[in-house]
Order: sequence, then C-alpha cells, then structure tokens
Amino acid sequence: MSIYADNAATTKISKNALEVMNKTAENCYGNPSSVHSHGQMASSMLYKARTVIGTLVGASLPEEIVFTSGGSESNTQAIMTGAAYGEKYGKTKIISSSFEHHSVLNALESLKRRGFEIVFIDPDRNGIVQPQALEDAIDENTALVTIMTANNEIGTLQPISALAKIAHSKSALFHTDAVQAIGHVPFSAKEFNVDMMSASAHKFHGPKGVGILYVKAGLKATQVIYGGHQENNSRPGTENLPGIAAMAAALKDSVLSMQKNYEYISSLRKKLTEELLTIPNTLLNGDTDNRVPGIMNFVFEGIEGEALLLMLDSRDISVSSGSACTAGSLDPSHVLKSIGLPEDLTHGSIRISLSEDNTEEEVDIIAKAIKECVTKLRDMSETWQEIQSGIRKSEIE
Amino acid sequence: MSIYADNAATTKISKNALEVMNKTAENCYGNPSSVHSHGQMASSMLYKARTVIGTLVGASLPEEIVFTSGGSESNTQAIMTGAAYGEKYGKTKIISSSFEHHSVLNALESLKRRGFEIVFIDPDRNGIVQPQALEDAIDENTALVTIMTANNEIGTLQPISALAKIAHSKSALFHTDAVQAIGHVPFSAKEFNVDMMSASAHKFHGPKGVGILYVKAGLKATQVIYGGHQENNSRPGTENLPGIAAMAAALKDSVLSMQKNYEYISSLRKKLTEELLTIPNTLLNGDTDNRVPGIMNFVFEGIEGEALLLMLDSRDISVSSGSACTAGSLDPSHVLKSIGLPEDLTHGSIRISLSEDNTEEEVDIIAKAIKECVTKLRDMSETWQEIQSGIRKSEIE
Repeated sequence: MSIYADNAATTKISKNALEVMNKTAENCYGNPSSVHSHGQMASSMLYKARTVIGTLVGASLPEEIVFTSGGSESNTQAIMTGAAYGEKYGKTKIISSSFEHHSVLNALESLKRRGFEIVFIDPDRNGIVQPQALEDAIDENTALVTIMTANNEIGTLQPISALAKIAHSKSALFHTDAVQAIGHVPFSAKEFNVDMMSASAHKFHGPKGVGILYVKAGLKATQVIYGGHQENNSRPGTENLPGIAAMAAALKDSVLSMQKNYEYISSLRKKLTEELLTIPNTLLNGDTDNRVPGIMNFVFEGIEGEALLLMLDSRDISVSSGSACTAGSLDPSHVLKSIGLPEDLTHGSIRISLSEDNTEEEVDIIAKAIKECVTKLRDMSETWQEIQSGIRKSEIE
Repeated sequence: MSIYADNAATTKISKNALEVMNKTAENCYGNPSSVHSHGQMASSMLYKARTVIGTLVGASLPEEIVFTSGGSESNTQAIMTGAAYGEKYGKTKIISSSFEHHSVLNALESLKRRGFEIVFIDPDRNGIVQPQALEDAIDENTALVTIMTANNEIGTLQPISALAKIAHSKSALFHTDAVQAIGHVPFSAKEFNVDMMSASAHKFHGPKGVGILYVKAGLKATQVIYGGHQENNSRPGTENLPGIAAMAAALKDSVLSMQKNYEYISSLRKKLTEELLTIPNTLLNGDTDNRVPGIMNFVFEGIEGEALLLMLDSRDISVSSGSACTAGSLDPSHVLKSIGLPEDLTHGSIRISLSEDNTEEEVDIIAKAIKECVTKLRDMSETWQEIQSGIRKSEIE
C-alpha cells in the first residue's frame, strides 16, 4: 500500500474536478474572448466560475477574482501591485514575515533594485506573527504588508484580520498568500478585509497550473504578463477555462465539506502527533492548535530528516523534509530558522501533510514506520549516541 | 450542424491529449520537486515530456525547453530576457514588426520605461517581413529582434532563418513568437538558429494554460514569476504536469501528422479561397502560398466584418473578425493596417481558421453561407450602393 502524506506539496485532483475539467474541455472549448457562440458559451462559463469562486473566498464582486497560473504567479503579481501602489504614493517600505514562501521572498528581493526597503518580521516561537511585531515595524512609508495565512512548512495560522487592520491604519495595502489555507479553513476576503489574496487550485484537490488572485474592487492588479485584455486587463492570455471550471468545482467541494474534513483531518493529525511525541526528544513545530488541519512538522533529535524521508519512501510512505519548492537543497529550512529552532534541530525535521483522502489505518502505519525508522537512524547516529551518553546536551528542553 | 472555424483563436483538445492529461492527473499527481517516489515519478514524466517536446521543436537539449502557462507568458519572458541581455551588454534598441501579437507589442511598450528604443518594421503588402527591412533597421546597439513565425490574423509565414542570421550579425538575440506555427508547419530551433521561441499548446489541440519557451543553451531566461527553483530556476511554480504531458502528446501527434494535415487543410483553404474570391470586390489578405495551412483573412468591400461574423454565428458557423485577444474592440486591426490595407477595408475583414477536424462539407457550407450573407449585407450597405453606382471608388484594384 502506497501512502501519500505530502498534501502540502500537492494534492491529487478530485474525481469531480477532473470530470468538470474533461466536460469543459470537450464541450466548451471556445476562446472566451471570441464573439461567436462558442466563445460566448466559454465566456459565460468563465463568469460562472468567477462568481462561484468569488462567493467562496468572500469577494464582494466576481470581478475581484483574477485567474492566474498558480500561487507563485499570484504572489508575484500581488507584490508587484503593492510596489506600483508604493511608487504611486511615494511609499518605499514593504513589510513581510521571514517565513513566507519563496515566491514572496524572491519577488520582494527583486524590489530592492527598484529602491524598496524590505523589512521582515519574525514569527514567534509558535510560528505566529504577532500583531505587535507588525505595529512596531510599520510606519506611514509602508506601501504593502504581505503575510501568509497558513505557513506551508509548519501549518500555523496567522491573525490575518488583525494584521490587515494594522496595515490599513498606515494606508498600506495588505496581501496574504493563502495558498495553504483556502479550501482548508474558513477565509473571507471581505471579513478579513484584505486587499489581495493568493490561492492555488492544486492545494485543494483542483488541477495544477491554475490559481487565484483576489484583488479588492478599486485596486488594479499590475500586469506581470503582457498581452490581450483578458481578466479585466490584469492577466492576459487565453483563459484556461477547463482548469478554472475544475478549480471552482474543487473549491466548492472543499468549502462544502470543510467542517467535516477539518474535524476528520484534525483527528488524524492529533492521533499521529500523540503517537510521534511518544518518541523521546521529539518536537512538534508550531502552535499545537492554531493551524490548518493537515500540516505537521516534527523534529526528531539526532537524525537527518532527509534520511528519514528516504527510509519512509522505501516503505511506500511519501512525506517531505520541508517545502517541495526547496527540496533537494541542503540549506536548513528558513521557516524553522525563523521560529528560532536551533540549526542542529532543523536538519532533523520532516513535514507530514494529510488530506481527507488519508485514513486512520494509514496514520497507524505512518506512526509505526516513523518509530521504527527513527530508532534505526538513531542507532547509526553519532550525535544521538553523544546525547545519550551525556557528552552532548540535548537541544530539546 | 455547428461549424467551428476559429482554430487560430483556440483549438479543441484532441482525444489523445485529453486522455494523457487524465491519466497523468490520476496516476502521476506528485510534485516533481518532491524527493519521494510520487515526486520522482512525476519528475521523470516531466523530463520525458521535455525530451519529446525538445526533439519536436528542434532543441539541442531537453533543458532548452521551459514550460510556461502559455504564449503570452512565453512572449513576455522572452522579451524580458532580451531586455536583460541588452542591459548586460549596454544595448538599448529592440526591433520587432508592426504586426506582432499584443503580448509582444505590450511587453515591448513596457520596456520604453526602462530606456529601450523600440523600432517596428512593417511587413510588405503580402504580409511578409523582408530581411532587407531588418538589415536597414539593425545596428550594433540592437539587443533583441523579435518577429513572429506565422501571423495570427492573416497566417503569413516569415523568413525566420534569414531574419535570425541578420540579428546575429549584430550580436543581437533573436526571438520568434511561433504560437501559430508550431504543430502546423516544420520548425527547428537549431536549423533556424533562433535564441528563443514561444509556443502555446491550445493552438495545436493541446490543453489551455500551458506553453513553451525555447531558450537556447547558454542563455538564461529572466524570471517574470518569482518562487522556487523549478524549470532550472527560469519559471517557478509547481509544474502543471498533466497539462505538460498532454501538450507533449498533442505536439507529437501534430508533428507526426503534419505533412498529411498540411496537405488536407491546404486543400480546404484553397477550395474555400477560390469560392470566396468569386464574390466581387473580395480580397485575400497576405501572400497566397507562403502561409500556415489553416488561417485565411478576407476583406469583403462595403460590409462590416463584425456584422458578417454575427450573421454567420446565427447559422452556427464560428469565425472571427480578427484575433480573439482584441475581439470586441472597434479599432481596426493593427495587422491589416501594417500590411497597408486602406482603413475602410480593414473593417470588412473576417478571419477563417481551419484545422484537420474540419471537413470539405463544412467548407462548402461556409462558402455558401458567406456568399449569401455578404449579398444580404451589401444590399443594406450604403457604401456598397455608392460603389455600385460609381459615386464612390472601390478601394480594391
């Protein structure tokens, strides 16, 4: 039996979303920009998807939804929009957190060349960005605050509504990368009062290659791709209607089943967490409760996360040692560093991310496998021997 | 019977491509960046698709293929790469043609703010950019020459190999937007010696939302989307593997059937052209022979193309009055202007674009319908009455 427990990297598309994608590709293949009936049918399907998605993320108008190719593009575009806003109003500072996804970090890095000062605030030891930290960093010169809704490596949820309020108090825009949150926990652009929000279909059992940028009415998203007038002149290129319709279907299913899935996945997570914390010198990274249901990140002192991952893989269990986007890199996770985890420990971490497709039986198998593998790896670990014999001090209090 | 004759706007995905997309989504849903076996299977599928596509477009190495979200993104990225090359080597001029797609035109427009001088050369009356025109415009200060392989409104083919040679003689990069050519006429990046080439899957019966940027080995594509290390650090974001695999399948099918399709579609085009040119005061725009097989653009003097399009639509025939990306705009086509068509005539144009899915019977129906509709529209046209009575001179010699 093969167990997939890397749903934060990507999920399997749902049967329903795949069916919608097929039907749309078969029956509604016109270009939504075309004037003829093939085009108009596509255009009305597109509007329907925009309306459904708008409603599900708490937009005030369907037109606030811009369809993109995914989370990285949405994040890039949101940040370029914040930069344009800054340049328009003479504001040169952007505030973010130090544990954002690389699409945010690297887009911000590129803005330094345009004269922006980028300020990163650290989350606390539990993986939460405290509103006070933003209060301390923000000033009237701040153009944009961009802080993720749920962290992709440790799963902790951020106080988006409070952070957005602080941003607005200094007339800064507020963007949130909600890629790991949308479809998993309640989100309302209106209630949280965010100006921009990024999401990606393949993180909630939708297709790959399609995403959402929510842009509050009145704000115009800066183009990062040039071309035709599509997406209200915000995102050129023939719309990927089969993907967009499938994303709408997947999001609808996710939101309708959210409460049920939340409870089910949380119960799996709690069970697995409980089991794994019986292993000595083991740590759950991030707040115990304030998190999306499926993502967990553990540190097993004295071993290499990468070795554990490969050992589990040989038992047909797929987990990850960090985010997929940085997989293969030997640098310690910037997320674990940001929450103050000692560097030695960052190397011993793995991320397990469950979805509603996982079963209790799978969780039992994962727990048993990890216990056995950690024991084997520690048997071969000098660090572990040193900790055991008291030569080296454990870094886990 | 509904007739779809707007294949330059978009094509219907082929049965085979759709099947490949489904199979890949079902069986190979891992994130190609993940270390575990689900990820590694996806990664090897991705490499396979890269190899297939590389071979089919005449790349020297699979790594020369960058997967994007489509033609507009590929064109944007190619032009930004040319700009970066210019800034590196102190070259500030970019040469293009005046009948490019808006993704090229608008990306170039954005570069003016970065200090680039953009020079547009006009194609000749037959819709061909003559090498001599490029010779006259180019100098050592030229960073990039970007000229499309096949025009999207009139279908004419450009002498890419000769144009690339001229670009290289001044150490300029050469990019071609081959969106309307790939899968329809032979193309070899190596033989033509281009530095960059853009293509889009949905123009050759592949899925929407996925495209190709060919980037010659040694040249590094500038990121327009920020994020992880995907696509050799050129294009971040989780790869849309189902779409990419489907694109590879569609391109393979298109290339394997190219000769057969070329002959078949050309015979349909010639038949339709012959029929339509029996209508008085009718013009085929662009060279008669030097073109992709399926795209035709006609002017019927004295009528509005948009009115003809709607009348045909009411008979279940889908054609367009220009490119889909500018549909609904009342501006005359920049393409028809660029080939020197008098403005009055540009309003009377329609584009018909056939694929291998069209039949001879459909062509007969289209010809009959257009003849009848043009007659009806001319009966109601003051301009036409004036031309008939000799008050107004015909603009068609």
